[in-house]
Amino acid sequence: MAKAHEFPSRLLRGYATFRDQRLPQESSRYKVLAETGQRPRTMILGCSDSRAAPETIFDAAPGELFVVRNVAALVPPFTPDGEHHGTSAAIEFGVMGLKVRNLVVMGHGRCGGITAYMAERDAPELQGSNDYISKWTSLLKPAEALICDDPVETTDRQRAMEFASIRQTIENLRTFPWIKSLEEIDELELHGAWFDISTGELYLLDKETGRFTVPDEIEA
Amino acid sequence: MAKAHEFPSRLLRGYATFRDQRLPQESSRYKVLAETGQRPRTMILGCSDSRAAPETIFDAAPGELFVVRNVAALVPPFTPDGEHHGTSAAIEFGVMGLKVRNLVVMGHGRCGGITAYMAERDAPELQGSNDYISKWTSLLKPAEALICDDPVETTDRQRAMEFASIRQTIENLRTFPWIKSLEEIDELELHGAWFDISTGELYLLDKETGRFTVPDEIEA
Amino acid sequence: MAKAHEFPSRLLRGYATFRDQRLPQESSRYKVLAETGQRPRTMILGCSDSRAAPETIFDAAPGELFVVRNVAALVPPFTPDGEHHGTSAAIEFGVMGLKVRNLVVMGHGRCGGITAYMAERDAPELQGSNDYISKWTSLLKPAEALICDDPVETTDRQRAMEFASIRQTIENLRTFPWIKSLEEIDELELHGAWFDISTGELYLLDKETGRFTVPDEIEA
Amino acid sequence: MAKAHEFPSRLLRGYATFRDQRLPQESSRYKVLAETGQRPRTMILGCSDSRAAPETIFDAAPGELFVVRNVAALVPPFTPDGEHHGTSAAIEFGVMGLKVRNLVVMGHGRCGGITAYMAERDAPELQGSNDYISKWTSLLKPAEALICDDPVETTDRQRAMEFASIRQTIENLRTFPWIKSLEEIDELELHGAWFDISTGELYLLDKETGRFTVPDEIEA
Repeated sequence: MAKAHEFPSRLLRGYATFRDQRLPQESSRYKVLAETGQRPRTMILGCSDSRAAPETIFDAAPGELFVVRNVAALVPPFTPDGEHHGTSAAIEFGVMGLKVRNLVVMGHGRCGGITAYMAERDAPELQGSNDYISKWTSLLKPAEALICDDPVETTDRQRAMEFASIRQTIENLRTFPWIKSLEEIDELELHGAWFDISTGELYLLDKETGRFTVPDEIEA
Repeated sequence: MAKAHEFPSRLLRGYATFRDQRLPQESSRYKVLAETGQRPRTMILGCSDSRAAPETIFDAAPGELFVVRNVAALVPPFTPDGEHHGTSAAIEFGVMGLKVRNLVVMGHGRCGGITAYMAERDAPELQGSNDYISKWTSLLKPAEALICDDPVETTDRQRAMEFASIRQTIENLRTFPWIKSLEEIDELELHGAWFDISTGELYLLDKETGRFTVPDEIEA
Repeated sequence: MAKAHEFPSRLLRGYATFRDQRLPQESSRYKVLAETGQRPRTMILGCSDSRAAPETIFDAAPGELFVVRNVAALVPPFTPDGEHHGTSAAIEFGVMGLKVRNLVVMGHGRCGGITAYMAERDAPELQGSNDYISKWTSLLKPAEALICDDPVETTDRQRAMEFASIRQTIENLRTFPWIKSLEEIDELELHGAWFDISTGELYLLDKETGRFTVPDEIEA
Repeated sequence: MAKAHEFPSRLLRGYATFRDQRLPQESSRYKVLAETGQRPRTMILGCSDSRAAPETIFDAAPGELFVVRNVAALVPPFTPDGEHHGTSAAIEFGVMGLKVRNLVVMGHGRCGGITAYMAERDAPELQGSNDYISKWTSLLKPAEALICDDPVETTDRQRAMEFASIRQTIENLRTFPWIKSLEEIDELELHGAWFDISTGELYLLDKETGRFTVPDEIEA
């Protein structure tokens, strides 16, 4: 099965396109950032979903976004237990090491992680052998208390849970002592964003109202 | 401090560009993939580094790549201990849930996670309060045994460690019983790739030799 | 009548052969695919004819082909009327549930379903009490408009109708909104194939010309 | 996207293997059965699952098995309403047209159709837009009354439902007047079989006890 050992041809074609078209435009950026090191000002905690790539949605250039992606863009509360915490380590790396000024928690519509959580909540007996996913999405439990009485959130439970999840993740981030402190002295800003993978609309979390809306600045 | 509550303007401008230029071209993909669900064939376990975005390097369209990113593209060995394992959950979601056929572990040059590990190894006294990062990068320890005696790996210790790390992560992935099983019956393929953020070159892991080379197919 | 209650001995012998010869070779595939779930990349809509088994003709291993078979490999146009549609349900299961990437409509020579249709068309008085068959094969009516003026199709009316039937079934498949959408964004490919049960030749539908030919790749 | 128009290479390779290896051995069978027409003695109503191909499990030669496959091997009760009934038409074709002597309803383990039915039954709100599947699997509802108090059926609900489904399908087949009549005069035999896709074991329905067991004849 030689074929079984080949690198996906689709990726090779995609790389060739990058190398021939985009790389020439960005070569100086890559070169300089390789020598001076990366200096992103923004970190994005996003979802692994194939339809929600931060660099695509924000048209980002190399070096602009430090990105950690996992199922549903979640993070456990601060837990200094000496275990392997990949997401927490990435956040520590971005906030403490790279000193990013903005940390954006980015969710999206039709999130499979949210759907999986709701399915198991509604029918626990359906839970299969997906041990890691079940445990990971159980981080969503407290988020249910953060569902708003928006018309939209009342009628669209999936989206309501997606919004609430972002609010919960931001709360979890604030359990990290250095994040709380940096935010208090305005050295770090936490943001919430939700991308509608169907329409391409971007909703932002209004820190005053706690609601998600499409801000005027980006109204089509 | 109203300003402190604004969404990063750079991201708003980037989104506007996406909305005006790329979204119109991809709108049908987004719409269809929202209705039918994502169906990526490839999963990428990459690094959070701002200079190594998989969608950029592989010129990927929405829906093509299921991506998990953390510091240094690492994964702990299979550990069904009921703890929150974000990376393992994402891998379970991609391999078992989405049934991807390819899983690419993608490292890159000048990786800060690798540098941090090597610095602490050589000068433990350097270790600061970055508890999560130290613990996370300690996953690299066994990788040192996987450094090859390539000329390049002997002279460039950083790159040697980056290559070895990818080999180690692939070994760790094989400790997941379902990954090992699916690979054995040729239903899942594991690949290794390394991106040179300075030159834009892409190296691939040769499964026969265990070496990283720039394959002829993509030779400039 | 004990005999009347015995399982066909031919099947028992055949199973014994499978159990002793092929099962040992495929046992790991069966075991793994039982634990991880099936992940076929291709779905085949074929005919129930005993001489046209897809797994035999494509030498398929367990788990490779999701197969729906009925008389003449037909499918009614999209009809969301809440009735029991077995073929449409299977197509929905394969395309939406299993996310197959290829859907092959496979017809064959000397197809009894096609013969029955042509006989009733030419001599309605022949129609007997085979109510289900007559109604089912009436799906072939619009296919007559898709007969080409190939030399072969002009001289061999049965084969011409078999080819046209495959073209018609593909058109009917495109009346399913999600099939049409997925095909438009290149996430699903529809193919046509015709198997000559007499010679064992495989003809493929050329999407450019709409003609059936034996492609060079598989020329003996 | 020329690639998008290619026939799956895996199928082309599989066909080449069939043409070079098996076809030569079966060429006379194919040739004769093409000229004389098919004359299978057994019809199998099986599932579309990629792991349960009747020709493979029964090591069948071309012409031996007339096979209809749909999701979960179901058939609606006799309904002469003039609608398009693909499965009923295939059964009519096999029993009345080809005069098969045996009709085997064959289920299998880990059946996705059964799982889907049970999931929606336990959590109706989870039902998505899979309109055809939901309607089709609703044929399983009456089968719940046919679950036995076997130790196995009591402890393994999925398997119990798979067994009950086969019993129900056989009952539905007997609502076809000609099937009932032919069975009464011992001209047609209805059988039930269940294939364990994990171990490869074959269970048969004992017509006396109504239980599924591995018969001595095929005990390993």
